[in-house]
Amino acid sequence: MSLRYLSARVAQQIDDELMSAAGAYSLDQLMELAGQACAVALARVYDRTRYPRVLVCCGPGNQGGDGLVAARHLGLFGYKPSVFLPKPGSKEIYKRLKTQCDNMQIPTTSDLGSLKTALESSDVIMDAIFGFSFKPPVRAPFDEVLPLLARSKLPIVSVDIPSGWDVEDGRPSDPLPGPGATGSSGEKKVDALDPDVLISLTAPKEGVWEYRGRHFLGGRFVPKSLEEKFGLNLPEYPGTDLIVELPTAPENTVKL
Amino acid sequence: MSLRYLSARVAQQIDDELMSAAGAYSLDQLMELAGQACAVALARVYDRTRYPRVLVCCGPGNQGGDGLVAARHLGLFGYKPSVFLPKPGSKEIYKRLKTQCDNMQIPTTSDLGSLKTALESSDVIMDAIFGFSFKPPVRAPFDEVLPLLARSKLPIVSVDIPSGWDVEDGRPSDPLPGPGATGSSGEKKVDALDPDVLISLTAPKEGVWEYRGRHFLGGRFVPKSLEEKFGLNLPEYPGTDLIVELPTAPENTVKL
Repeated sequence: MSLRYLSARVAQQIDDELMSAAGAYSLDQLMELAGQACAVALARVYDRTRYPRVLVCCGPGNQGGDGLVAARHLGLFGYKPSVFLPKPGSKEIYKRLKTQCDNMQIPTTSDLGSLKTALESSDVIMDAIFGFSFKPPVRAPFDEVLPLLARSKLPIVSVDIPSGWDVEDGRPSDPLPGPGATGSSGEKKVDALDPDVLISLTAPKEGVWEYRGRHFLGGRFVPKSLEEKFGLNLPEYPGTDLIVELPTAPENTVKL
Repeated sequence: MSLRYLSARVAQQIDDELMSAAGAYSLDQLMELAGQACAVALARVYDRTRYPRVLVCCGPGNQGGDGLVAARHLGLFGYKPSVFLPKPGSKEIYKRLKTQCDNMQIPTTSDLGSLKTALESSDVIMDAIFGFSFKPPVRAPFDEVLPLLARSKLPIVSVDIPSGWDVEDGRPSDPLPGPGATGSSGEKKVDALDPDVLISLTAPKEGVWEYRGRHFLGGRFVPKSLEEKFGLNLPEYPGTDLIVELPTAPENTVKL
């Protein structure tokens, strides 16, 4: 019985079911538990004494909400998080999560200029830009954000799916040499991040099948009945831990 | 700088402030984090291999909501929880939390007869009956519930305030011998529980000043600014832990 890697469609089905009248979870609950797990995963790898300054980069959707929750928990864990949020989501929950960060004195920036400054004074990046509903291509302003993050050479912790990767097909190939393969500055275009750490939520997505960095699973909220219905075969979380590290060798798993 | 023990009024003020427009927390978020901390505290003391069967006794208010969240997390941690919920709260959130327990196949009972049966097949009790808004006397059906729990001799983990204790004045004295001091069965009346473990949420309440069992603090969601405004002087939580154990000696603390 092997861990199931999810298509975008099945990931969405599971989310919908968790938040249906039958599943009864609220978005507030699931986002709180997901973002908390992301913060714990980062802390597991990047010690707050050596990597205190975490730049949490948030997208406009639920993934960005997870990032805002993670930033707050990182602050509570004693890190010095800051948030880059160029396109705040419009849902009321994102406004509340942003206010909660404000109340924690977590600074937020939104323009590319301040992103460059923030990168110079950060120790690690949390990539909460795109989640399992991402469809290429990478749109503005994130087409300029991803290259800045990649070129910073800072360690990256990606949430659920590394930003720029296809949710099912994985990392896009580097462009072939020739016109269009380099940006206006002449540098090679970067359309995808290569994270050092990945935290998959609920279950990993098909696109990270060949991901080879440290890989954690979080989102300890799936009832056994739902796990069985979708054949997830989740690994056992140790004790009361909110995350569990996955083996990176794909031979331990089966792609359905 | 000593940990502050809260009056009922100040505890309510802090809750109100956390959930105000300025605090921006939702009840869903705070209840999730509170109940999760309760589950972690129980698991810290009562190992799931020796104490798998947890009877979570829920009151009709927010305290009962914390209990329902704790029951779900205990199920996810591998315990075999069951819920005793004689007076379900009417708020929509309690219905959702109850459904989440149903989805985890956590059995719920509500009458005194099944409580007796449940006690015979339980290893530890979580007391989530009364919280910091409790005012004596203990009303039906809980006036019959507390004696049953106390006489079971099972270990008890109380949430925030041991049920039957005054939030500010602490444990009520045992009744003097004489008429009214014994119930209809002739046994001594029990109006208050004596828990082995206490998990205080946000900050301890004045009434547990002289509590002498193992005492944990949970609710790692208080922004520093709010902590300072109310002079809470919270202890540092270790690492990413959701709870911190408090020293039981009152000489380490100052009652304000």
